[in-house]
Amino acid sequence: MTQPVVAFWYEFASTYSFLAAERIEALAAERGVTLAWKPFLLGVVFKKLGYETSPFNLVPDKGRYMWRDMERWCERLGLPLVKPDPFPQNSLAAARVALALPDDARPAFSKALYRLEFCEGAPIGDEAVLREAVLQAGEELQPALSAAKTDLVKHALRRQTEEAEALGLFGAPTLVTPDGEIFWGNDRLEEALDWAVARRGRA
Amino acid sequence: MTQPVVAFWYEFASTYSFLAAERIEALAAERGVTLAWKPFLLGVVFKKLGYETSPFNLVPDKGRYMWRDMERWCERLGLPLVKPDPFPQNSLAAARVALALPDDARPAFSKALYRLEFCEGAPIGDEAVLREAVLQAGEELQPALSAAKTDLVKHALRRQTEEAEALGLFGAPTLVTPDGEIFWGNDRLEEALDWAVARRGRA
Repeated sequence: MTQPVVAFWYEFASTYSFLAAERIEALAAERGVTLAWKPFLLGVVFKKLGYETSPFNLVPDKGRYMWRDMERWCERLGLPLVKPDPFPQNSLAAARVALALPDDARPAFSKALYRLEFCEGAPIGDEAVLREAVLQAGEELQPALSAAKTDLVKHALRRQTEEAEALGLFGAPTLVTPDGEIFWGNDRLEEALDWAVARRGRA
Repeated sequence: MTQPVVAFWYEFASTYSFLAAERIEALAAERGVTLAWKPFLLGVVFKKLGYETSPFNLVPDKGRYMWRDMERWCERLGLPLVKPDPFPQNSLAAARVALALPDDARPAFSKALYRLEFCEGAPIGDEAVLREAVLQAGEELQPALSAAKTDLVKHALRRQTEEAEALGLFGAPTLVTPDGEIFWGNDRLEEALDWAVARRGRA
């Protein structure tokens, strides 16, 4: 039986997307699930909802909670946590580079960029930081940095963000199973993957 | 060693508080944790944040997701789900009755009222519904229905809601451990209780 494919929707500025990117591959491999890594621009969705910035900035208590929760999670994962300034980072260029890469290189690039952002506090809009993440994913991938600036890739990101909106996504990370079930949050990775396995072949 | 006491903050109008109320006692008992059931008025907190109603109503995609998520959860717990109308329900009278009850009766009343609300769609502001939940918790508890209308209980609820605000709570359910760690959401019950056990005696 073929492996179920679960879509992993993520946003480069999102702290919980970072945690999910760290955790999801092992969880998927354990269960025999294939992942489709789908970066999108959550900020576009937020703007349509009338949010000018992250809800973690709009609601200070929620923001304080989130950063403390990140400390606990990072400690558990054995990772340092450095808050990027400003938060959230502008993730447009990062998402374009991710889409300019071959599918198979996207996870390694995304994880490398997230660690630069949240373990070192690096500005992910900077060309040098993007280049460093691309190099970590593979030296031969450097052409993606210029491809990211083409209309082709810009349009691809726009379409992907529209697809996220059409699915009704309102946060990141979000997993979507082959039968269309939506699971929001780093807390729900296991549940989403288990769902996909239990309903394998039924979609 | 004495059992750690974890505060379980909940809101009677909240769907995920209902799930937490269904799940938390077994999880706490397994781990040797004592619970303090603390109802509060999340609406008061939301109003200060500028929300006129539940975020699940303000963001339709989030609301659709939440109700589908509730269907999945209720199916797993073997419970019917009936959406109360309107949602969210006015929970003021319910929270007052809960506080008018002896501590030991609060869990049974709260669970009974949540089932009336979310498994039968009953209006929890109605005296008859509140009475039914009190009766299910114990016939001898009926005086709580009139005690709920005294200034003493009204003030107690106001103080409890102020305490929630002072703790920085912004949603429900939320667990607070003896060392002051905050865990938000029905997804994090296990983690919060495990945290309290691991740090037993250190608070």
